[in-house]
Amino acid sequence: MSETKAFQDYYPDDFAHCYGCGRLNEDGLQLKSYWDGDETVCRYQPRPYHTGGFPGFGYGGLVASLLDCHGTASAAAAKYREEGRKMGTEPALRFVTASLKVDFIAPTPIDGILEVRGKIKEVKGRKVTISETLSAGDKVVAKGEVIAVLIPENFMAEK
Amino acid sequence: MSETKAFQDYYPDDFAHCYGCGRLNEDGLQLKSYWDGDETVCRYQPRPYHTGGFPGFGYGGLVASLLDCHGTASAAAAKYREEGRKMGTEPALRFVTASLKVDFIAPTPIDGILEVRGKIKEVKGRKVTISETLSAGDKVVAKGEVIAVLIPENFMAEK
Repeated sequence: MSETKAFQDYYPDDFAHCYGCGRLNEDGLQLKSYWDGDETVCRYQPRPYHTGGFPGFGYGGLVASLLDCHGTASAAAAKYREEGRKMGTEPALRFVTASLKVDFIAPTPIDGILEVRGKIKEVKGRKVTISETLSAGDKVVAKGEVIAVLIPENFMAEK
Repeated sequence: MSETKAFQDYYPDDFAHCYGCGRLNEDGLQLKSYWDGDETVCRYQPRPYHTGGFPGFGYGGLVASLLDCHGTASAAAAKYREEGRKMGTEPALRFVTASLKVDFIAPTPIDGILEVRGKIKEVKGRKVTISETLSAGDKVVAKGEVIAVLIPENFMAEK
């Protein structure tokens, strides 16, 4: 998968500043999402200071960030696919989060790579619903759902 | 309110490493939560690089982090209050998030101070439910709910 461009690499420059997944945010996490069959996947190695209350495990906001950014990226990819278009073709599709739900199942170790997997639950007009899991090795540590909404084209054009 | 200690200042040292709110995490946001009558409040000035997709507004993970950390802190404060105990008395009460729900209502400006307010919805045994709002000035930009669970005392003792 590393040979192909990530979903986030297709975001227009003006919409690529997200701390979680913007390729133009030098301080950010620069999350990268890809297709894996009909699922989407994002792998990330947390930074040592991403600890939660006690060392060795991650903070809740990191888990939420992974699900959120991978969710909106997956929504864009799903919408392109639904329209039978390749990512990067115009007009650009960029989603924002309307709602995010996270169920924390187990502490999230941060000494290895975490994997977020997304399933496209529904594409309905401007709205895409993604269900997600976050795993550390074979263990699912969190589950979540993102409802993402397409940014209107005229708003995109103004930027 | 700045004259009093924050909820997070009472966390035992071994549980004060959270990137969002741990006073011992030098890289972290060091969020601080306080009582304001029967509500809880946390104010935070985002960093310039906390941008979302486009500059000037925050990323979803920041909103989630604010609600998450303020939620668990509020849960601890509520449980102490329910037990008629002052924060800082033994045994220490420290909560983790079981679930987090965020509804994003409007883009979150990051050029000023954001305010999270929590209402204690329910204290039931080891579980506390907090409903929250995030505001920028007079505008509510997000709403959320945190269900937090008390970390068992024997786990705390092992650390």
